[in-house]
Amino acid sequence: MELLKERILREASVTNNDVLKLDALLNHQVDPLLTMEMGKEFARLYAEQPITKVITIESSGIPVAFATAIALGVPLLFARRKKTLIADPDSYCERVPSFTKGIVTDIMVSRQFLSPDDHVLFIDDIIANGDAARGLIKIIERSGAALAGLGVVIEKSFQAGARTIREQGIQVESLVKIASLEDGKIRFE
Amino acid sequence: MELLKERILREASVTNNDVLKLDALLNHQVDPLLTMEMGKEFARLYAEQPITKVITIESSGIPVAFATAIALGVPLLFARRKKTLIADPDSYCERVPSFTKGIVTDIMVSRQFLSPDDHVLFIDDIIANGDAARGLIKIIERSGAALAGLGVVIEKSFQAGARTIREQGIQVESLVKIASLEDGKIRFE
Repeated sequence: MELLKERILREASVTNNDVLKLDALLNHQVDPLLTMEMGKEFARLYAEQPITKVITIESSGIPVAFATAIALGVPLLFARRKKTLIADPDSYCERVPSFTKGIVTDIMVSRQFLSPDDHVLFIDDIIANGDAARGLIKIIERSGAALAGLGVVIEKSFQAGARTIREQGIQVESLVKIASLEDGKIRFE
Repeated sequence: MELLKERILREASVTNNDVLKLDALLNHQVDPLLTMEMGKEFARLYAEQPITKVITIESSGIPVAFATAIALGVPLLFARRKKTLIADPDSYCERVPSFTKGIVTDIMVSRQFLSPDDHVLFIDDIIANGDAARGLIKIIERSGAALAGLGVVIEKSFQAGARTIREQGIQVESLVKIASLEDGKIRFE
C-alpha cells in the first residue's frame, strides 16, 4: 500500500534498530479514512474465503480489524488481555510474552463466540516476533474454527514472526513490509 | 436508541445488581453495522460543535469512538492504559481506579496529539462510577483543549458517574440509560 508507506515515512519515527514508533497513525492516534482503506484492502486480499468473523487482540489492532469487519459485513471479536490468569472454563486462554513491553500477558477469548462453524480472519497492526499472534492462532485452533489467514498492517520482515507463521501453512498478508530500521532509517522491502 | 435497547435485552446478561455483561455486543464481540449507527447518532448529537478529534480510552471504547470519528471525518485518539507509571515528560498521565476490574491503572495521552487548538469529543462505551472518564477529562483540561462533551453508549444512571460529570457543566449524552439491574432484570429509564 503506497499511501501507507508515504504516511509511515512522514509520521513514524525509529526508536532503535528494532522498534518503530507509530503513535501518530496506528497505536495512539488513528486516521479513520486511511484505516478504512486498509480494511478494504484486507477484504479484497481474502475475498475468496467464506469469512464469518474478524478477530484481533486488544488494543491497537481494533480500529483496522473493525474496518475490515465493516468491509466484509461480519462481526468483530477482540481477544482480551488479562493481568491475572484465573482459570475460566468458559474461555480459551494462552500466555504470551510481549516484545515491545517486555512483559507476559494472558490473552482470552470466550468459547461463546468462537466455534467449529466459524471461518475467521485474524487482523493485527504489527507483527515482529509474532508471540501474541501465535497465541491467538493456538486459541483459534483449539476452538475448531477455520483460520482464513493473518492480515497485518506492518510486517517487520527482519524479525521472525511472519515467517514462522507462514511456515505453519497460514496465509499471511502484509500491507507494508519493513526490511530494516538500521541507522535510524526505514527501509521497505 | 430503540434498536440498541432491543439488542441489550436479547444479548446482555445481568451479572449482579451493579454489573451488566455486554460481551456479545460491546466488550468482546462487536456488531460493526450497529456500531456505525451509534457513531452516526453521536455525530448528530454534537453536530453543532467544531470537533477536531474524537478521544476515548482503550479498549472497549475504541470501536464506537472509531465509528464516531468516521461520521465526523476527524482523527481518533485513544488514551493508553499503563501498568507502571513511569514519569514521561511527553505525556499527560492520570491514575484511575477501575470499577469492574477492582484495580488501579494509569491512563496516558501524548502531549503531541492534544493541544489548545483541539475541540475534542470524548466517546466511551459504558459509564458507571465515572472514575476513568473523570481521569481523561482532567487530562483534556490540562492540555488546554476544549471538550465538546462526553457521549456514552450505556449510562448506568443508578450509579453516580454521569451525574457528577454533568454537574461539572459537561454535556453528557447517552444512547441508552439503565435505571436498575435489580432482581436480574434490566430496567431502562
